[in-house]
Formats: sequence, structure tokens, C-alpha cells
Amino acid sequence: MEDPEEHLTHDPHVDPQLAAYRKSIDNIDAALIHMLAERFRITQAVGEYKAKKQLPPADPRREDKQVMRLRALAESADLDPEFSEKFIRFVIDEVIRHHNIARGK
Amino acid sequence: MEDPEEHLTHDPHVDPQLAAYRKSIDNIDAALIHMLAERFRITQAVGEYKAKKQLPPADPRREDKQVMRLRALAESADLDPEFSEKFIRFVIDEVIRHHNIARGK
Repeated sequence: MEDPEEHLTHDPHVDPQLAAYRKSIDNIDAALIHMLAERFRITQAVGEYKAKKQLPPADPRREDKQVMRLRALAESADLDPEFSEKFIRFVIDEVIRHHNIARGK
Repeated sequence: MEDPEEHLTHDPHVDPQLAAYRKSIDNIDAALIHMLAERFRITQAVGEYKAKKQLPPADPRREDKQVMRLRALAESADLDPEFSEKFIRFVIDEVIRHHNIARGK
């Protein structure tokens, strides 16, 4: 198997301070990818559970609460709340896409 | 100040198993928002550093490496690599938008 880190071997042409910033960005991105992987594991389980219990697939009230909460968290962390909303809607759209694929089976 | 958790007070109408899943999703989302906030703190510093050192603002070779690496990490975590690529491009586009706003000042 290919080593994912191989793509990021040190480039001698890169400024050392810039290389240090990039290392931090790469660490954060790896954490984000693993968090997203875990989030989709849970939403997949939610999809299966809702289908089994005949619960409605979407819950707009829950979605609005998620958006409001994440905007507030973003604000407290100095992240643009508009971006946090775009982000969570991007993720939720992907979850819905997965659920539709699962239903189409 | 408003408590962000207030929006997620327990709803007695929600199935307990579904409520447990949602609690995990909310914890992961809070982690994602804080990771993204930290990522934008670093990319903001990178933007300022590149401007000071007169380094080019974009680096397509670096971007391609990031995409390849995250696709490999996604695969190893059973996350759709297509989604990981859409996600990192979504984040990079936002970084570029921030840099353009900063330059327009």
C-alpha cells in the first residue's frame, strides 16, 4: 500500500517557516478527514436505524438547530459563522446523498 | 451571552437511540468547527507571511499533493475519497477567498 505521507516529503525549495505552517495544516487536515470519516459512520447508522424504525429520513427542525449551534460555536472560535453554515450544509447534503444512494439499492 | 448548547436541549419526542447518535454527531461537529477555526488561523498567518516575503500566493503543486494525500487518508478511513477531495477544495477555495479579501484592503 502506498504511504500517504510520501506525497509530502520535504521539499528543499520550500521556505522553512512556510514548511512549518504546512506541517500544522497537514496535521489538522488529517484530523478533519478522520473526524468526517467517523461522522459518516454515525450518519450511516442513523440512516439504517431510521429505516428500521420507520422514522422520517429528514428532520428540518434538527437541521436548523445544528446550523444555529455551529454558527454560535464558530463565532466563539473567531471562525466566520457564514462559513460554518456553508460547511455544515455541505456535509448534510453529502449525508442526504448517501441516504438516497442507500435507498436506491 | 447565549449558550450554544441551549439550542440542543433534550427533546422528549426524540427516540433515545436517535438522541444518542445525535449527541455524538454534535460532539464531532464541535470538534470540526474548532479544527477549521485553527486551520484558518494558520492560513491567515501563511497569507501574511507570503505577502511579507513576496512569495507567490498560490501553489498548485502543493494543492495537488494535499488532495492526493487526503484521498489516501480518506480511503484508509473508509471515507469516500471523492468527498475528501470535494471537502479540501471547498476549504482551499475559502482560504483563497480570504486571501483575496485581505489583498483588497
